[in-house]
Amino acid sequence: MSNSSRWSEYRYRRRVQFHEVDGAGIVHFTWFFRYMSEAVHALWRAAGLSVAPPGSDIGFPIVATAFEYRRPLRFEDEFEVRIRVVEMKKSTLRYACVISRGRERIATGSLTIVCVRKQPDRPLKAISIPPDIAGRFRAAPDPHFTKEPRQ
Amino acid sequence: MSNSSRWSEYRYRRRVQFHEVDGAGIVHFTWFFRYMSEAVHALWRAAGLSVAPPGSDIGFPIVATAFEYRRPLRFEDEFEVRIRVVEMKKSTLRYACVISRGRERIATGSLTIVCVRKQPDRPLKAISIPPDIAGRFRAAPDPHFTKEPRQ
Amino acid sequence: MSNSSRWSEYRYRRRVQFHEVDGAGIVHFTWFFRYMSEAVHALWRAAGLSVAPPGSDIGFPIVATAFEYRRPLRFEDEFEVRIRVVEMKKSTLRYACVISRGRERIATGSLTIVCVRKQPDRPLKAISIPPDIAGRFRAAPDPHFTKEPRQ
Amino acid sequence: MSNSSRWSEYRYRRRVQFHEVDGAGIVHFTWFFRYMSEAVHALWRAAGLSVAPPGSDIGFPIVATAFEYRRPLRFEDEFEVRIRVVEMKKSTLRYACVISRGRERIATGSLTIVCVRKQPDRPLKAISIPPDIAGRFRAAPDPHFTKEPRQ
Repeated sequence: MSNSSRWSEYRYRRRVQFHEVDGAGIVHFTWFFRYMSEAVHALWRAAGLSVAPPGSDIGFPIVATAFEYRRPLRFEDEFEVRIRVVEMKKSTLRYACVISRGRERIATGSLTIVCVRKQPDRPLKAISIPPDIAGRFRAAPDPHFTKEPRQ
Repeated sequence: MSNSSRWSEYRYRRRVQFHEVDGAGIVHFTWFFRYMSEAVHALWRAAGLSVAPPGSDIGFPIVATAFEYRRPLRFEDEFEVRIRVVEMKKSTLRYACVISRGRERIATGSLTIVCVRKQPDRPLKAISIPPDIAGRFRAAPDPHFTKEPRQ
Repeated sequence: MSNSSRWSEYRYRRRVQFHEVDGAGIVHFTWFFRYMSEAVHALWRAAGLSVAPPGSDIGFPIVATAFEYRRPLRFEDEFEVRIRVVEMKKSTLRYACVISRGRERIATGSLTIVCVRKQPDRPLKAISIPPDIAGRFRAAPDPHFTKEPRQ
Repeated sequence: MSNSSRWSEYRYRRRVQFHEVDGAGIVHFTWFFRYMSEAVHALWRAAGLSVAPPGSDIGFPIVATAFEYRRPLRFEDEFEVRIRVVEMKKSTLRYACVISRGRERIATGSLTIVCVRKQPDRPLKAISIPPDIAGRFRAAPDPHFTKEPRQ
């Protein structure tokens, strides 16, 4: 499979829903993690995959994640979640994420998932990412991706 | 097993969390269903049961639910969810629920669950509630339970 | 304004997100209320309105809502939320809702909202729906809307 | 006010609710941020404060947050969220957080909030934390707090 058919990045569009806004009138900070996660799953679908196909005995729990917030999002705002594979190891995939509204940068995040075999009532155990999944992605590290541009 | 060891009612106490409050400054209406559901699960624990024990192949999805709202709840309010088994049939359990803050009635709800056997990638199929579960509860219908008292 | 420019119905498309699925592998029942609510807000946007414009001192809290569930939704399912204004009174609007996946009916719901004036630290008080909002909608009651069709 | 009346740490107890568990049968990673946030608000209440008192024109939005996950939490697990003020500056408060179930360390997190004046339809603007709030807390940095102990 050529590199050209591997996915590194995806742009996911979304609108703020009323139930995502908190008592301070801005999107609750925890929703940004769900927006990032939705974008990762959309990237997987674009690559012909599902992060959780029915009946699968492997899964991809999160091992680390973070967000930095610059500006708030409000009800009915339209925004873009740009997600990028920045590192791919034997068992883990790391994503970087930029959320923007028009030309305004709103927040930047990161998410690391690990491939595990699910066994009922047993601890999760890391395994190698299966080749048919790893072969669909390509890491495209870019130190400037989540950096704020100079004014 | 005597009736006296069967459970009909439970009072569950809770405080409103910040992330449950919406952009209008009041608890989002969908949270009342989660409060009711938490109270049902607390009733099951009080009865020595879990609504979803690890590895179980039966489950209790919701078939119908409703809420009527009289007054809003706000951040950090302490409130009580009073839950009651009002009907028990072969496969279904119906609960009524009153949410109050101090002496103020806030909302009333209902929830009907059905016992199903879970089979991967197959439609859910209703089955009889197992005797070791049905035997822990007793329906206590009361037409006045969720009615607003006369002033 | 002619009736033809008034809105009675809207079809809202959505995909199930991973965080909406519960431990039983199906969409948690509370999410159906959020789907219905998102569809109502989309109907308002289609009619040129927002249910919560910035700085507005009126709001539309929910006074009653209900859902009946026939079949579960699962991760990545695409579905449609068809929402309809079935009653419009001086202060309240009532919606009916049908959620379907392809030709399968999944669930039916209802939602009643009331127009209130928001005053800090004061009880919510029902007021007449302003004419520029009421004039954008038309009730289209249909007893068959949420009924299961005969087989 | 003596240091002894200032708060640096709080232990908040919680049980996993059914709606917090995702399709993989474990608590969805976004819920850890809500657990941490609930613990911060409980610390504020213990200190005689509210993070969002009614009618207040100041607020404390999140500017940065992160979590690392070691083990999953499951339905009905009881766990503890230990929260600690690790840095206090003019406008910001930084918390560290350890989530554990019995003697097992589950996850570690951090949360930085900034004090802002809320003005309708205006960008949020950082201000100094008011003395009656700053005076209730004391930073207690501890590099070992969120480190995994040696085995």
